[in-house]
Amino acid sequence: VTSESAFIDSLRALAAHPGARGLIDDVAVLDIGGETIVLTHDAIVEGVHYLAIDPPADVAWKLLAVNLSDLAAKGARPIGVLLGYALGDAAWDRDFVRGLAGALGAFDLPLLGGDTVSMPAGAPRLLGLTAIGRASGPVPSRSGARPGDDLWVSGTIGDAGAGLEILIAGGDGPAGLVERYRNPRPRLEAGARLAPCVTAMMDVSDGLLIDAGRMARASQCALAIAVDAVPLSDDYLAFRGDGRAARIEAAIAGDDYELLFAAAPGDAAALLALGEEIRLSLSRIGVFAKGAGLALDDAGTPVALPPRLGFEHQG
Amino acid sequence: VTSESAFIDSLRALAAHPGARGLIDDVAVLDIGGETIVLTHDAIVEGVHYLAIDPPADVAWKLLAVNLSDLAAKGARPIGVLLGYALGDAAWDRDFVRGLAGALGAFDLPLLGGDTVSMPAGAPRLLGLTAIGRASGPVPSRSGARPGDDLWVSGTIGDAGAGLEILIAGGDGPAGLVERYRNPRPRLEAGARLAPCVTAMMDVSDGLLIDAGRMARASQCALAIAVDAVPLSDDYLAFRGDGRAARIEAAIAGDDYELLFAAAPGDAAALLALGEEIRLSLSRIGVFAKGAGLALDDAGTPVALPPRLGFEHQG
Repeated sequence: VTSESAFIDSLRALAAHPGARGLIDDVAVLDIGGETIVLTHDAIVEGVHYLAIDPPADVAWKLLAVNLSDLAAKGARPIGVLLGYALGDAAWDRDFVRGLAGALGAFDLPLLGGDTVSMPAGAPRLLGLTAIGRASGPVPSRSGARPGDDLWVSGTIGDAGAGLEILIAGGDGPAGLVERYRNPRPRLEAGARLAPCVTAMMDVSDGLLIDAGRMARASQCALAIAVDAVPLSDDYLAFRGDGRAARIEAAIAGDDYELLFAAAPGDAAALLALGEEIRLSLSRIGVFAKGAGLALDDAGTPVALPPRLGFEHQG
Repeated sequence: VTSESAFIDSLRALAAHPGARGLIDDVAVLDIGGETIVLTHDAIVEGVHYLAIDPPADVAWKLLAVNLSDLAAKGARPIGVLLGYALGDAAWDRDFVRGLAGALGAFDLPLLGGDTVSMPAGAPRLLGLTAIGRASGPVPSRSGARPGDDLWVSGTIGDAGAGLEILIAGGDGPAGLVERYRNPRPRLEAGARLAPCVTAMMDVSDGLLIDAGRMARASQCALAIAVDAVPLSDDYLAFRGDGRAARIEAAIAGDDYELLFAAAPGDAAALLALGEEIRLSLSRIGVFAKGAGLALDDAGTPVALPPRLGFEHQG
């Protein structure tokens, strides 16, 4: 079996167009008639990206949300979506459409097209979605962080991973954590407001540490992250406590769909004020430097990297 | 199991945006900055839309070609594509990328982005592609045919279906027919040139009769098709003969990826001249009328509709 990263490397030769951004930015960026169009396509697979027991309406929400999160991280506002749907059980399909209707309604978005196919009996399903967005300003890449920039993250980290653990164990834990797993909220307003202020931005989908490491590598910088600064929710703290292990667990959990961004230190006050205005906490959690590699500390004490930094399997 | 048409009906309520064209046109049409952008997403499934024994490079060609054919039918020129890829066997993946490189190169198109996912072991694969195009003039729908218009089709019909039959039977037959099955040629130049001259246009993917019936229904017209006017290739005639049964077989075979269009009778001479100019035969095969329903005749003699008009399973 080919690894995802090796496969994507083999595709890079086909993606010389500047709009492809070297296939490192999860989106394509096209200038059309003086406007900037941002396109993303993410797929989710039964048994890989969602549980067969997950309610179909939540699968629909997640399929939309993971794509909108990619647009949010580029400062783009969504225009509409194309759905690539594999038919299955009739009741499941019906509930999926109801869920998709609710999810599209929540973001006031139209379905614009797509394709519906049948699968061989018993095959796990792959559901794909293409989201089309428009950016009214600069479209930050993940490769623009500079030595001296701060690393920031929106919201709280680790909730969705804890929610997944609760679901797998049978359901005992704060409902807010399960909600974060099943119904991630793409940070569209924050992304559009932050885009002009950041030097790099991406979403956190595979885990804070692995995604932050990717931003540092793409930006050809070293990065130090303060574990004690990783923002945790009250639900998370109640569920796991707030020791170092709980903080590191949050930082590798994945499925957060928060925004991870780099900004000049001089912009910190303006960013904190913006967070207050849009009612979303923005937390400074690290610093970029010359060099390479990812390092952790906890209240100033160096901490070893965990053996796994997040999920490799997600796109 | 939900039928595709019932499922698409349930999606239509989510697709009220005019750019969705009521989900009947295989594409989305967006006006952006004074330009017209046309988007399509088609998926193909192993064991449903392609044979597990098909060479991976041909699968890559087909995945691209079926999407470009949708753009061609709307008069749009492609700008680039997003790939939704499910990883499998490493050698197959490598050959797929080589094939995709060749296919994109043949149309001078970049890969702009997409997503790569892993499937559970042994799962049949679904491969998706989103193609982005630009139209410089009107974007014909399939619903614009008027009573009195002629029905036209480009190229020859039935070759790909015969090629598939040759492959399944083990390979004895004209190589040109197999080539038409494995490497369909989207009619991009023809589509762009025809778009300003037609009242309706779509591609033939599921079978000439079923697709022509869809155009007639969408246009709220009756349609009579002259079986004896269906254009057949020399290879096809050599393989199946040119009796009525062979002509009907061609008209329900599918996978043609030719253009099917309606035009006013007064434009016939101009269309024939255009076909000569772009070196693609354009054949008048039917007439729209007031009313509803599809009727066949062979040199003026009414012919019963075959029990199956094409493939229902394709999108």
